[in-house]
Amino acid sequence: MKKFINQSDDVLVESLSGFAEAHADLVSLTLDPHFLCRKKPAVNKVAVISGGGSGHEPLHAGYIGYGMLDAACPGHVFTSPTPDQMLAAAETVASNKGVLFIVKNYAGDVMNFEMAAEMLSVENATVYTSDDCAVINSTYTSGRRGVAGTVIVEKCVGSLAETGASLAECQALGEKVNQHTSSIGVALSSCTVPAAGRPTFSLGEDEIEMGVGIHGEPGRRRTRMQEADAIVKDCVDAILADWQLKKLSLTENHESLLLINGFGATPLMELYLIYHSAAKQLKQHGVCITRSLVGNYTTALDMAGASISLCLLDEEIKRHWDSPVHTAALRWGC
Amino acid sequence: MKKFINQSDDVLVESLSGFAEAHADLVSLTLDPHFLCRKKPAVNKVAVISGGGSGHEPLHAGYIGYGMLDAACPGHVFTSPTPDQMLAAAETVASNKGVLFIVKNYAGDVMNFEMAAEMLSVENATVYTSDDCAVINSTYTSGRRGVAGTVIVEKCVGSLAETGASLAECQALGEKVNQHTSSIGVALSSCTVPAAGRPTFSLGEDEIEMGVGIHGEPGRRRTRMQEADAIVKDCVDAILADWQLKKLSLTENHESLLLINGFGATPLMELYLIYHSAAKQLKQHGVCITRSLVGNYTTALDMAGASISLCLLDEEIKRHWDSPVHTAALRWGC
Repeated sequence: MKKFINQSDDVLVESLSGFAEAHADLVSLTLDPHFLCRKKPAVNKVAVISGGGSGHEPLHAGYIGYGMLDAACPGHVFTSPTPDQMLAAAETVASNKGVLFIVKNYAGDVMNFEMAAEMLSVENATVYTSDDCAVINSTYTSGRRGVAGTVIVEKCVGSLAETGASLAECQALGEKVNQHTSSIGVALSSCTVPAAGRPTFSLGEDEIEMGVGIHGEPGRRRTRMQEADAIVKDCVDAILADWQLKKLSLTENHESLLLINGFGATPLMELYLIYHSAAKQLKQHGVCITRSLVGNYTTALDMAGASISLCLLDEEIKRHWDSPVHTAALRWGC
Repeated sequence: MKKFINQSDDVLVESLSGFAEAHADLVSLTLDPHFLCRKKPAVNKVAVISGGGSGHEPLHAGYIGYGMLDAACPGHVFTSPTPDQMLAAAETVASNKGVLFIVKNYAGDVMNFEMAAEMLSVENATVYTSDDCAVINSTYTSGRRGVAGTVIVEKCVGSLAETGASLAECQALGEKVNQHTSSIGVALSSCTVPAAGRPTFSLGEDEIEMGVGIHGEPGRRRTRMQEADAIVKDCVDAILADWQLKKLSLTENHESLLLINGFGATPLMELYLIYHSAAKQLKQHGVCITRSLVGNYTTALDMAGASISLCLLDEEIKRHWDSPVHTAALRWGC
């Protein structure tokens, strides 16, 4: 294993410290229990808090700031944060409108966020993300996994919260965006957790994992390496089948958001090539793409691979996607 | 080789097409000869044009837009663009204030940009970037290599050009920023050029290349893998020695910009850890960091590794670094 680390036990705190130092205008870091929150606490709005195992950067700390999250709770690499982190974060950022947790659907995260929610004296609600259509259940989940579509949920809910909307309204929008979004990923290589020191899984020289999870969980099947267009076709077919299952229909003037997400070790040049292929194929299916995001937004450490997420926009989702945001990893309009 | 590509001959055009489609609000793509330029041409300002071999994304196309570049000319992977590309781009974006080329110091780029500059009927000048302090001459260069510091040059010159400054003023600022910036990189793995299909160089299981170039050119030496703090110490020492050589002195109220740049396959978690280590060590040397940038800004395809760039700010450089920019890869203030 070759990684830029010192001791594997110190990776998390050293990396969080670097993040907080590099973005000292935006975020504050608290240690023991670990959480990051906005430098300038927001008032009179629902506090939006997310978190989960580390190793998916910039998710979630990179999305703290105006128009998105109020706080994020990072667990150890690929390990859920503990309830004391969520409690400390919530007590720091909560105002009079309550707290909304956004939680990717993994058993550990669900359990620990639920425990925090029960212990929290402030009114709160939770949105679970489950955009990954690759498999029904997975290594760490009952039900579908929450993956890169979580970024779209956090962006839209964060925007609505800034308007002073109620906790119920924020929760409803988060659930709608999750419902409107389907994702699927593919791995060309494994990732390596620093503390383990060896690849999480092994793939043959010519093999890929279709439908991989963001912790290296098995997907739908192993196949031989194929041309990008063929891999993208598999992904697009899976997403459109999922849209059908969810009864998301393409009305005449529909618009959609296409997110091509790199898992960490795949260069931007390839991500844009995937974008080109996916956009072309989706167009042939009548999908009208009017919003785009391409880059490393929900990663899996040093995994080579990428995921495709497609979100069916309506006027409300579009407005909240387009609204100003100022975070370390997403910024526009301010 | 596992990459998201179709035919290796088509990688460049498919990737450029994806980029132009995903950022259709910002850029227009012209093929044969290939160049990208702003969607809305700017008038009454120096046209700032860069370019070079592809494989360093988001450099340079990702920096087209308000406050930065007017156009970029992408060569094939790790291959200089040809003069007809620069001529076509310049003729498209030039206004009455002339054209400034920003060129990384590699023999092929220098030759082809010079040829274009001679053939161009519009008044023009060139800034050569040479921020890499790893080696004096290199595989593709006489003199020092231009690497990630180029992003800082493009940002500052682009900002000045928007104010209506003259060609000579823009050139002078570009040369000053280049002079104020020192960089050095380290590779943990090779990169693989799609058309070659095999790694550009080979590194042992436990080896790293200190001072590597962004095409995989040899650096100062091979060493054994070390802890991040030790690797960063080597880099920081090299940069500060270079500052001394350049007679950049740390006045009492000096400020500096620290850029931690990923080469493509190194996750953000490690880049922030490098940031933390570099900031700590620089502080011990009396360097005062007040501006930061961490991410993949000048890549080397799928190379695992990173570079550190340090730019000594003065009031002029700081003002132009802070000014609004709206490009695919850098955006703030608008």
